Amino acid sequence: MPRTVKVAVVGLGSVGQAVTRLLLQTPTVKVVGVADPAPASAGKDLGVALGLPRRLRIKVNGDPERFIKKLSADAAVVCTSSLLKEVKPQVLGLAARRVQILTTCEELAFPVPRRATAFREIDREAKRRKVSVLAAGLNPGFAMDALALMLTAPCTGVRRVSVTRVQDAGTRSLPLQRRVGAGLNLGQFRRAVTEKTVRHVGLVESAHMIASALGWKLDKVDEALEPAVAPRDLDTEYLRIAAGAAAGIRQSVRGYRQGELAVSLDLQVYVGAEAPRDHILVDADPPVDATISGGITGEVATAAILVSMLPRLLGAPPGLITVKDLPLLHALNPHDLVPVSTRKR
Amino acid sequence: MPRTVKVAVVGLGSVGQAVTRLLLQTPTVKVVGVADPAPASAGKDLGVALGLPRRLRIKVNGDPERFIKKLSADAAVVCTSSLLKEVKPQVLGLAARRVQILTTCEELAFPVPRRATAFREIDREAKRRKVSVLAAGLNPGFAMDALALMLTAPCTGVRRVSVTRVQDAGTRSLPLQRRVGAGLNLGQFRRAVTEKTVRHVGLVESAHMIASALGWKLDKVDEALEPAVAPRDLDTEYLRIAAGAAAGIRQSVRGYRQGELAVSLDLQVYVGAEAPRDHILVDADPPVDATISGGITGEVATAAILVSMLPRLLGAPPGLITVKDLPLLHALNPHDLVPVSTRKR
Repeated sequence: MPRTVKVAVVGLGSVGQAVTRLLLQTPTVKVVGVADPAPASAGKDLGVALGLPRRLRIKVNGDPERFIKKLSADAAVVCTSSLLKEVKPQVLGLAARRVQILTTCEELAFPVPRRATAFREIDREAKRRKVSVLAAGLNPGFAMDALALMLTAPCTGVRRVSVTRVQDAGTRSLPLQRRVGAGLNLGQFRRAVTEKTVRHVGLVESAHMIASALGWKLDKVDEALEPAVAPRDLDTEYLRIAAGAAAGIRQSVRGYRQGELAVSLDLQVYVGAEAPRDHILVDADPPVDATISGGITGEVATAAILVSMLPRLLGAPPGLITVKDLPLLHALNPHDLVPVSTRKR
Repeated sequence: MPRTVKVAVVGLGSVGQAVTRLLLQTPTVKVVGVADPAPASAGKDLGVALGLPRRLRIKVNGDPERFIKKLSADAAVVCTSSLLKEVKPQVLGLAARRVQILTTCEELAFPVPRRATAFREIDREAKRRKVSVLAAGLNPGFAMDALALMLTAPCTGVRRVSVTRVQDAGTRSLPLQRRVGAGLNLGQFRRAVTEKTVRHVGLVESAHMIASALGWKLDKVDEALEPAVAPRDLDTEYLRIAAGAAAGIRQSVRGYRQGELAVSLDLQVYVGAEAPRDHILVDADPPVDATISGGITGEVATAAILVSMLPRLLGAPPGLITVKDLPLLHALNPHDLVPVSTRKR
């Protein structure tokens, strides 16, 4: 009988919950522990915390720091924050326990110049401890970078990679609607942008991943974040958005190479967005024009990508790795999961 | 200054020519030799054989067998045949010269049960000689397998992968129109199918690649090849197709798993095909519905994929490898090309 892979989850937000549910369904995985300080989960049985109809006899640890310090597992999935500074101590703590680390932390998806030092530090420590660290997810990590890169494979003379991701926030959860500022008046929206409570994290990381893979040096990277303004009163299940208020975000990153626009990423997430889609355009010979109708969204998709990365993580060389260096991504084959200790590292 | 990678090309058909042109444009590659026995190329200067406006001082060797026996190169691209039995002696000959091998041979793209023995033999010999062997291209190798697999990454509970590739043969070359039987009456078409002169090679390989990656055991794989019948008289630049004659092919492979259709591949290449496209549908949670409008076709795209594989080939472990085991594919970054001798193997 094959040994199961022991996996812990740190952070039981919506993505952490979806990841945990998926791990519980994966026959070659054993969930060995979960931590989250939020009162809704801390101290409760995991089954209860996940809203499952049964108890799982795993108590959610309310103290992630202590949890990490004592953890014994093959891998941990860290779903705590988008911010490197918040995730870094958790990553270093897990590395010290020789636990392989998968995280949703968007800022860890790819080294952008302003975070290069922290990346080097994590990479060094991961190598010293012989663990691999990988940040992954739908975006960054797939829809606006890895998939776009894959679509350049049949191309010569690539001049520009453009990705447009349009999502109707009206069909999503209240936390997501809040995260894109739906319902804020334009003054509130501007303040929220300044305070960084309204935004998507990861576009700059995606732009740098694309450029790096193609061997491009970007001489300028511009970021913009504007409200998508409600053209009329809009209602969601949770919110009323007055005409003229923010219905969500229009966020973009433009990367320039030798003065020409080379990477163009547009993310539009707002209530009432029409024709939701992921659109990838590679300006090259031949060009590639790909559309995923409806787009790929949601916690299940994010969780699926994360869990599908587990075999890649366990098979990767030690250090801080990125999605672009991994073997072809695809849905999890549970039998690809083999504990690190039985592998040649 | 970085060393260039020395590459040879065996076979100067339309794909071999496109590959050679692209290699000549790649700054980190040096084309060190080319072989093709066809009178149109053999003994001529490569520039002349490629229809370039200049001579290249490389003579096309008219005897591939002798060429291989004496070859000294980092890698060779073998574009001679779709058939394993024809390519196998060339691969073994190149392996004996310790040359890394990239080939368009469709039957080598993935081991199907009926060719497992030949695969094992090539794999063993490649390992013994410490060379990597990789079959790659647009189809198989990308459009109907690797890309479809990539699109399953955000999915849980994948039930079926369906790929439909529709191409208007009317916009393609005369050899391609002949290969899909355009202009044959239905009796001639049936004979050509029996003689295997009209068909696409590679669908079964793609089906097995998808199933293998997802951990699926296919209990039945059905193949079908029918004429697309011209609904009226059709004209291409080269051919007249009478109403009722074959305008091209409708080829399919259906793979079943536990009695259910699990992999469904449809290739339609005929004169007058409407809405050419690559369509990939993943029946899963969430589903993914992706369309490349216009589709990806042509020798340049095939050549681009092949050349983009060179760094992966040179970085791969020895043996017969397949596209699904390689790092994320993307357009060539010429600086990723490093001769094998300077790498740790």
